[in-house]
Amino acid sequence: MSKQQFGMVGLGVMGRNLALNSEGKGYSVSVYSHFYNETKEFLEAYPERNIKGFELIESFVQSIERPRKIMLMVTAGEITDKMIEQLLPHLEKEDMLIDGGNTHYEDTLRRSRYLETFGINFIGSGVSGGEEGALNGPSLMPGGQEKAYRLIQPLFEDIAAKAHDGKPCVSYIGPDGAGHFVKMVHNGIEYGDMQLIAEVFDILTRGLHLTIEEVSDIFSMWNEGELNSYLMSITSELLKRKDDLDTEDYIVSNILDKAGNKGTGKWTSQNALDLGVPLPLVTEAVFARFMSALKEERCVASKLLSGPTTTISCDKKEMIEKIRQALYFSKIMSYAQGFSQMMMASNDYNWQLNYGEIAQIFREGCIIRAQFLQKITDAYTKNPTLKNLMLDDYFLTIVTNYQDAIREVVSLAVKVGIPTPTLSSAIAYYDSYRSKDLPANIIQAQRDYFGAHTYERKDRDGIFHYDWYKKDK
Amino acid sequence: MSKQQFGMVGLGVMGRNLALNSEGKGYSVSVYSHFYNETKEFLEAYPERNIKGFELIESFVQSIERPRKIMLMVTAGEITDKMIEQLLPHLEKEDMLIDGGNTHYEDTLRRSRYLETFGINFIGSGVSGGEEGALNGPSLMPGGQEKAYRLIQPLFEDIAAKAHDGKPCVSYIGPDGAGHFVKMVHNGIEYGDMQLIAEVFDILTRGLHLTIEEVSDIFSMWNEGELNSYLMSITSELLKRKDDLDTEDYIVSNILDKAGNKGTGKWTSQNALDLGVPLPLVTEAVFARFMSALKEERCVASKLLSGPTTTISCDKKEMIEKIRQALYFSKIMSYAQGFSQMMMASNDYNWQLNYGEIAQIFREGCIIRAQFLQKITDAYTKNPTLKNLMLDDYFLTIVTNYQDAIREVVSLAVKVGIPTPTLSSAIAYYDSYRSKDLPANIIQAQRDYFGAHTYERKDRDGIFHYDWYKKDK
Repeated sequence: MSKQQFGMVGLGVMGRNLALNSEGKGYSVSVYSHFYNETKEFLEAYPERNIKGFELIESFVQSIERPRKIMLMVTAGEITDKMIEQLLPHLEKEDMLIDGGNTHYEDTLRRSRYLETFGINFIGSGVSGGEEGALNGPSLMPGGQEKAYRLIQPLFEDIAAKAHDGKPCVSYIGPDGAGHFVKMVHNGIEYGDMQLIAEVFDILTRGLHLTIEEVSDIFSMWNEGELNSYLMSITSELLKRKDDLDTEDYIVSNILDKAGNKGTGKWTSQNALDLGVPLPLVTEAVFARFMSALKEERCVASKLLSGPTTTISCDKKEMIEKIRQALYFSKIMSYAQGFSQMMMASNDYNWQLNYGEIAQIFREGCIIRAQFLQKITDAYTKNPTLKNLMLDDYFLTIVTNYQDAIREVVSLAVKVGIPTPTLSSAIAYYDSYRSKDLPANIIQAQRDYFGAHTYERKDRDGIFHYDWYKKDK
Repeated sequence: MSKQQFGMVGLGVMGRNLALNSEGKGYSVSVYSHFYNETKEFLEAYPERNIKGFELIESFVQSIERPRKIMLMVTAGEITDKMIEQLLPHLEKEDMLIDGGNTHYEDTLRRSRYLETFGINFIGSGVSGGEEGALNGPSLMPGGQEKAYRLIQPLFEDIAAKAHDGKPCVSYIGPDGAGHFVKMVHNGIEYGDMQLIAEVFDILTRGLHLTIEEVSDIFSMWNEGELNSYLMSITSELLKRKDDLDTEDYIVSNILDKAGNKGTGKWTSQNALDLGVPLPLVTEAVFARFMSALKEERCVASKLLSGPTTTISCDKKEMIEKIRQALYFSKIMSYAQGFSQMMMASNDYNWQLNYGEIAQIFREGCIIRAQFLQKITDAYTKNPTLKNLMLDDYFLTIVTNYQDAIREVVSLAVKVGIPTPTLSSAIAYYDSYRSKDLPANIIQAQRDYFGAHTYERKDRDGIFHYDWYKKDK
């Protein structure tokens, strides 16, 4: 009996779709689920496919050609560990496990080290694009032993999304946790992009009193230009949809303004805090989701806390263009922060991340796919050690030209009482980063005053302490 | 030989000062250090004090009356665990260890559970006020077994700072990690307070072109009013100090604008992210410190990234008053966020925190001590289940009256290019919290569109999914 080329563990929608995607590209696939009825149902639904299913995990493993390539698409966390333990006794040296779950990169790091002691290779791979991407082409971010990755590379390139230039949206990211790390930053950036669009929607509707239909048209128009992106496109699209229940409203009007989250955005912020990298925009977006969840409190507060009575009076058309510029400016700040975070992690973990390639594989398949990712690739191709995205010529020109617009939009929003946590943090990041001198000298003086934490000086090297309590001073 | 009443392990400056403070209040003290020469030096420096020192840990433990009360002032982390292991074999049931280090509350939780299996009580206590506070009266935040705390309560009340009304700045906080948790939030709030003052300094000097001396006078004046606080007072004071090296400048002018941090601010933010509580102000303050550390990058960027050419033209005196109002408004937002975080943790851990008492013990001894903490105590005394500080009558009146000022100050700063990450986030928090409807419905629609994450509705209960891909829509 000939062996199968690829194994899939876990038959939720992601596992099923990746198995179908792989088989569709000509690979023979074995599948296994902890729940045998899932396996049976899947095989019955696709009888004509070159997919074999097994009740026993041992038979599943035995059915795959060596060195085995087995992908896990199971719930991240404990279940991944349990599944690895069940597979381990049946694996042989040089076999490879691939975790495609939404795993924290530190877990991937730990599992990679653990499996290495058994001679088993381990790839932790970010998989972005949801159900639809899994079936028709996801963006893939694999990290782990490079030699091992090269064995799965042909399959990964076949199943991945293809960018406009035909390149597959997958690339070897780096050792151990690098792939899941990059996926984490991707998710954080996704939170930022979504919140920015939401704030802009708020300004356009509550501030400029545009209708939902008008905003949909504006987003559609913006999607034709430098703001072209999947999220801009689907937002324009979803705004147009009418309710599917018994109302005549646009569906968004009836959707409760409580945004859920699956915790991956908070990981990005928590990691930035550990690394010491400023990541305010994504973090404000995460907090904005928490704030949205306090719907009941907000309803009470809305009756007690008043706002300004100011209204916007301006040329609407001009203001819409300024809002567009503010959004693009902020998006650039957010990606600048995310890529700085990757750079810091790459140095800390010695991953040697290739930022240009990372931007390239974000171009299709994933949620943050957007035209402007090509600009990021270009920037890092020109200068692979670019310290901050803003300093690249293209982005420098944009932020220089668009800063007046975001200043005006944020001031206006603040004056009329529309909350813009991420737009505001974008301009604060810009103004901080371009400040040769920040008032942090005051903070250092305070710290030295109350805690003798010492300070450095502007005019000479060394560590100093001022005798603040000396009597004759 | 009569036994001593209190034991101190660790003879760094904090341990030494707390031992001296306790002895000064009439308690006999035994001390122990891992480094015996520290013990010898300490005893030699204070021969007349009722303090005994020991080379052997066993003799140290034996010298203390039962049930023993032994406080650890050692470096937080592994060293605390090691010291506990060294003490453990010599302890007897009902003895009590008190960790006064800068410990993460989750470590305190773990150690509390561990020591309980040996019948040893464990108090994790926040100690705030630095060296000077340790010697003359710190603010203390003890958490652990309430019965055990009652045994150490007289000593803690004797050594603690006293507020204006004579009350000691210590109170039983709650079980296990509650004390160290409250200390963590205190530290986060401290980061926020310091960054707010720094931003205001920046606006006054870079924006209004006031001299350092003028700002010192303004802060001194503000310190007489509702902004009265230790940090306001020392900032006014430190601004006046001349360099102690060979320059004629004010010392702050020569202090490098790179703010350090010992990681406790980041804990507060990371915890808020875990709890799902919006804590943007403190978090922006932590990120502002990280940003300040990028001095070299900022120097490069300052030559490439331009700012606006707008300058402020306004009545300076009026603007200074508006800045004062903006600062007080922001401070209220920050404390509202910190106390909401405590409330969420209290519910999650079933700690039954008493917010009014917590504000009360912050009134003296600690870094964030301020007159307005009495207002917080009053608010929670009136309504112990107050959902958000802003909704208390006193604070409601202030934020209602001061919102115009902060709106104007933030708009102005944004327009002239002075970064105000925490002031901006304060008004965004206010406007979000008072918004019955936020644009999070757009985010939920996006999530349901690309990931079938479902949504709730405004007009009826239940969980819904919209068929976005249905062809005929």
